[in-house]
Amino acid sequence: MRDAFHDELDSIGQTLIDMGDRVKVAMELATTALLTADLKLAEQVISDDDFIDTMQHELDAKTLTLLARQQPVAGDLRTLVTSLRMSADLERMGDLAHHIAKLARMRYPATAVPPELALTIQEMGNVAKRIIAKATGVIESHDLEAALQLEKDDDEMDKLHRKLFLTLLDDAWPHGIETAIDMTLLGRYYERCADHAVSVARRVYFLVTGQYASDEA
Amino acid sequence: MRDAFHDELDSIGQTLIDMGDRVKVAMELATTALLTADLKLAEQVISDDDFIDTMQHELDAKTLTLLARQQPVAGDLRTLVTSLRMSADLERMGDLAHHIAKLARMRYPATAVPPELALTIQEMGNVAKRIIAKATGVIESHDLEAALQLEKDDDEMDKLHRKLFLTLLDDAWPHGIETAIDMTLLGRYYERCADHAVSVARRVYFLVTGQYASDEA
Repeated sequence: MRDAFHDELDSIGQTLIDMGDRVKVAMELATTALLTADLKLAEQVISDDDFIDTMQHELDAKTLTLLARQQPVAGDLRTLVTSLRMSADLERMGDLAHHIAKLARMRYPATAVPPELALTIQEMGNVAKRIIAKATGVIESHDLEAALQLEKDDDEMDKLHRKLFLTLLDDAWPHGIETAIDMTLLGRYYERCADHAVSVARRVYFLVTGQYASDEA
Repeated sequence: MRDAFHDELDSIGQTLIDMGDRVKVAMELATTALLTADLKLAEQVISDDDFIDTMQHELDAKTLTLLARQQPVAGDLRTLVTSLRMSADLERMGDLAHHIAKLARMRYPATAVPPELALTIQEMGNVAKRIIAKATGVIESHDLEAALQLEKDDDEMDKLHRKLFLTLLDDAWPHGIETAIDMTLLGRYYERCADHAVSVARRVYFLVTGQYASDEA
């Protein structure tokens, strides 16, 4: 009975890793769709988000069933509770990729991102992809050192976010208000994605140690 | 033993209601600070957010302890798991009030919101306050009809959000890019606050019925 239970716990961990992999791909494809005005790719990210939402619902249902049936304690209980929280973070990261793809679709056939910001947005997309991959790796490895390292990628995202605002606020910004609004929202989507990845890593820290990472407010 | 446990469950419910009340006040004060350039009020909202964060941490610690010690099943288990999720929503709503207050502080002694948008932002603040109060009421009453009603307030918030964008995109918008960025972020903060209130109500729906509200994506 306990062995079957631990198989179930492993399978929950594997589903979280699969969600992380899907979210990473969604974010990468959304960034490409955005920068190349690729409508088909944007549509794909938008429809794939339903699948990520379904993964979360199924995973949470399974987690709740295990909580109810197995009445786990200590580490096993933490694993299940943390799984509910990580699935919520990952689902939200999927939503943010979906928002980015929707912006690409809304501005099609134009490219949503003007040339002045293409590189900054590409870099934000790269950092997002990297930080999601690292968060997913931490779910798998439970490596606390790696978990704390994600803060650095988040700092890099914040730096790019500030750079984006500086470009918008430059007197020479030639693209008007609508594009400035689009870029403000985009910046927020990438930044929040990185925040949720950090949150996933902190939850692994809590899972392993039973303590919150020290710099969590 | 079981009676003490149910006292604990009641106390968790009461703490969630207290969090909701504090978040409602924070959102109301943040909106006032924003519209009247009241630095002292903005500072108050910013420092009070630590208290909301602490409430969440203490509540979650207590919830995890009860999960571990009591090994609850069925309705009691759902209460505890749903409590963890609602506390996360409420904490995030507190963060959004904190973001609004920080914008008021950043633009002080100027008023962050230009006259053209003062009424729209005030209305967004009113809807936010109302929807938080309703979500908090639903935590207390477990009234499913009331839980579903929150969607209507959320629709009203979405309408105000669109109105805000229309004002920004009007050719006559005289306030430049920086204010447009501020207003875009503000609009997002209020809208997300309403989304989280709806999420709280949906969690109560799940708590009572064991089913997800039908329109949840």
